[in-house]
Amino acid sequence: MNKIEHIGIAVKSLETAAIIYEKLFGVPAYKQEEVASESLKTAFFKSGPNKIELLEATSPESPIAKFLEKKGEGIHHIAFEVDDIIKELARLKTEGFVVLNDTPKKGADNKWVAFLHPKSTNGVLIELCQEIE
Amino acid sequence: MNKIEHIGIAVKSLETAAIIYEKLFGVPAYKQEEVASESLKTAFFKSGPNKIELLEATSPESPIAKFLEKKGEGIHHIAFEVDDIIKELARLKTEGFVVLNDTPKKGADNKWVAFLHPKSTNGVLIELCQEIE
Repeated sequence: MNKIEHIGIAVKSLETAAIIYEKLFGVPAYKQEEVASESLKTAFFKSGPNKIELLEATSPESPIAKFLEKKGEGIHHIAFEVDDIIKELARLKTEGFVVLNDTPKKGADNKWVAFLHPKSTNGVLIELCQEIE
Repeated sequence: MNKIEHIGIAVKSLETAAIIYEKLFGVPAYKQEEVASESLKTAFFKSGPNKIELLEATSPESPIAKFLEKKGEGIHHIAFEVDDIIKELARLKTEGFVVLNDTPKKGADNKWVAFLHPKSTNGVLIELCQEIE
């Protein structure tokens, strides 16, 4: 776990939220990106070595749509940067963490991503991510 | 906003959660600290330039006790490090953010802290913090 790579925040409207976070950081989102496989679109902001990723659902089937329905807007996940996602997932499984996807999948921002179930991490959805080379 | 200084996670039992997060990071909490003014105790973990702060209520009046009752265990707040908390609070107020405490107060880990109301930040409780010199 090298650092917090980003924090994902579920929002109803990316457009509206991006205006608010632009005011917060004093600079606009440096990137917007759609992740069709997860039915979501994102806007990224930087805070030093870390990022904030706003997430809007593009379909009612999106995990973000389901999160918003259940919990409303707010923090959706924390992502930690790792050097070797396969090795780290294996280690965490032996430690008893519940891994949501054993095989890392392609996420936003050119990353391999995998998630730990919140029930094994005190209610926190944790993402591991590794840059795709 | 220099970086994400830490993420605060509300937990029922600091003792139990610290064992889980020790497994997650592969190293134990480097510090435990009680913040009597907020009726809470904390355990800190490092992830590169960032920290994770586990938070347990020490009284039913603690903001953490109220959070747990309403939402259960999970992410409580994101804290951003700033160089000049007074100046940054003033800037954010003029931008329309709702500041919970106009005057920074002493938080954990030798910091001046102030909070923005989640209603002005898409459901995210945001802390600004500055090292006390």
